Amino acid sequence: MFGAAAPSGEALPRDAVQLLAPVVPGKFIGLWNNFRELATKTGAAIPETPLWFLKANSSLNHPDGVIAPPASYTGKVLYEGELGLVIGRRCKDADEAEAADAIFGLTAVNDVTALDLLQADPSFPQWARAKSCDGFGPVGPTIATGLDWAALRVQVALNGRVRQDYPCSDMIIPPGRIVSLLSREMTLEAGDVIACGTSVGALPMRPGMVVEVTIAGIGTLRNVMAGGG
Amino acid sequence: MFGAAAPSGEALPRDAVQLLAPVVPGKFIGLWNNFRELATKTGAAIPETPLWFLKANSSLNHPDGVIAPPASYTGKVLYEGELGLVIGRRCKDADEAEAADAIFGLTAVNDVTALDLLQADPSFPQWARAKSCDGFGPVGPTIATGLDWAALRVQVALNGRVRQDYPCSDMIIPPGRIVSLLSREMTLEAGDVIACGTSVGALPMRPGMVVEVTIAGIGTLRNVMAGGG
Repeated sequence: MFGAAAPSGEALPRDAVQLLAPVVPGKFIGLWNNFRELATKTGAAIPETPLWFLKANSSLNHPDGVIAPPASYTGKVLYEGELGLVIGRRCKDADEAEAADAIFGLTAVNDVTALDLLQADPSFPQWARAKSCDGFGPVGPTIATGLDWAALRVQVALNGRVRQDYPCSDMIIPPGRIVSLLSREMTLEAGDVIACGTSVGALPMRPGMVVEVTIAGIGTLRNVMAGGG
Repeated sequence: MFGAAAPSGEALPRDAVQLLAPVVPGKFIGLWNNFRELATKTGAAIPETPLWFLKANSSLNHPDGVIAPPASYTGKVLYEGELGLVIGRRCKDADEAEAADAIFGLTAVNDVTALDLLQADPSFPQWARAKSCDGFGPVGPTIATGLDWAALRVQVALNGRVRQDYPCSDMIIPPGRIVSLLSREMTLEAGDVIACGTSVGALPMRPGMVVEVTIAGIGTLRNVMAGGG
């Protein structure tokens, strides 16, 4: 999937181009409760296996894309800055080493969430719905290869003010184990994206706000909330 | 997506061919609690809006395909016979009439479920995980157009014994409204499949059992549980 791409040698000024998300996920998977600091803060138990949900792949958003909540929704919209794993080849029943090897590279994900939909019905927590609105899945700006995930930090700035800044080393279930455990139950395919979960500091965004998820070596994934004049 | 297909005039004996699922879903959506008889039995409240989860599209299974639970899973595996809606064209913010018109046709879905994964972690109900194992999404054998959904019954036989037999007219949120409400939050695309939820009679399957979901005009979606010698 990613093997055929090669640099063309042509350089364009950043302002002259509009970036698209660097991958179109087949499956778009998000983890819940995968950072120790957040689990400690919320009192959640430390999970043994990945606790995950699916975002609709139609929620994909691009660098600089507008995040526009549905007209029918007037509740809180949260950003959640996360490290994203991009699968590079088919992966099934992989051990941790094989699984780590099946990760093509790392990207940044903003796992945008319609918080008030999540528990809107007391009988059924609506994870997929709250995470799947159009535009709620910004990914990018790049897929970086050769990075050491454990040395990275995920930083999120809202209107320029840093609101999340956490080390990936605080992750409870690390990337290779996530991919290995998921692959025991379902086949992962090249282009699948797994957002590793967020840590402390996720907050609601108001209309017009600029949200930037920055991971060194990957870049800054910038998006704007719709509205605000 | 479906517009370019035309009959070739060639007829083959059924036994000479292996059918594939008639659609490869981009999004594979399943509803929970959408039949009155089941809601009455379980005491669940009648929902106003679709309560839904996503199945990984990699869970797709074919007519006559084997349902093989993950080797790591030894719990109960349920069949759930359901009416499936196949979206025929892009659909966003559609009213009920437009939404009904965006449904290309109807199919049968077996929304196979790893029941013991669903509540394996008390802090996080794992709908996506329980529904997304490889092979847990049989679809087919056909997509029928021109049927009146409200006149259909969904019948499921396990080893030839009828275990589910319920009328689609008992549906709480009907197809056009499901599609309309979903389309207010996310864009539906041609090929997306929406399983309308099941009613009473879903039961665990043992190794080697044959499960057949029959809907008149669509046909019989037959699958076999792995194992059993």
